[in-house]
Amino acid sequence: MEIILKPVAIISNNRKDMSDDFWGDIVSEIELVDDIPSEALIGIEEFSHVEIIFNFNRVSKSVEFCRHPRGNSDWPMVGIFAQRGKDRPNKLGITVAELIRKEERKIYVRHLDAIDGTPVIDIKPVMKEFLIDPKKVLQPSWASEMLMNYWA
Amino acid sequence: MEIILKPVAIISNNRKDMSDDFWGDIVSEIELVDDIPSEALIGIEEFSHVEIIFNFNRVSKSVEFCRHPRGNSDWPMVGIFAQRGKDRPNKLGITVAELIRKEERKIYVRHLDAIDGTPVIDIKPVMKEFLIDPKKVLQPSWASEMLMNYWA
Repeated sequence: MEIILKPVAIISNNRKDMSDDFWGDIVSEIELVDDIPSEALIGIEEFSHVEIIFNFNRVSKSVEFCRHPRGNSDWPMVGIFAQRGKDRPNKLGITVAELIRKEERKIYVRHLDAIDGTPVIDIKPVMKEFLIDPKKVLQPSWASEMLMNYWA
Repeated sequence: MEIILKPVAIISNNRKDMSDDFWGDIVSEIELVDDIPSEALIGIEEFSHVEIIFNFNRVSKSVEFCRHPRGNSDWPMVGIFAQRGKDRPNKLGITVAELIRKEERKIYVRHLDAIDGTPVIDIKPVMKEFLIDPKKVLQPSWASEMLMNYWA
């Protein structure tokens, strides 16, 4: 069984190369592709945050199903579904970003960890009812160490 | 440009038909498909929550790019990217679920709004650094009204 997707938009920003950290200040423009009508964005400006699903299209490595996160042997070997790294089955990334403003066929967002030229697969508004209280989330210490400078 | 995905797991639960509300109590089993090794789940039990990306594989309608959410004319006409409904380009759903337990090739989750037999495209651990404070999220009143009984 195969599922075929087509990009709905493209990301532009000043992060040209893949790198791990310091995504906090990057502002991204997301512009609809030609075959998506501008009506698809109507009303999005009433939301403060959007969830962006994107394709890690520059990743060519085959999947390692279990590995040290970022190749760092100080951290345990964990499965790819216990990591958010890009070398994963189906190569999809998902991040909640802050919506700065909307134009007719574009939105501008902050706090998105995708590089220039990345294809967008979907845009979903963030609704409170789908969020969980960060205080209830438990994670292993390697994840917190790894993400120390991620949004710096 | 096309992106081809293959399911990594399948959801089983007691919600057999598509319906809008009352997802709160449903427990779902998510079992890896045969060509994904069990190593892919190692360490996932150290996380309290997982993000499940799934395919609305029973949706056959073509996309309406702008419509009243749930067809309810009391609510405004909004673009499909300002809604989370299933009749959307690329038919992907994303929900953060609570991880109840892991077996070798399965995880059990609560708070997942996908029906029995739904293909899973990716599983990502929830890390605090990717969450936003629910108190900072703004959304239009129609969204809050619509989701009143969603997790009941």
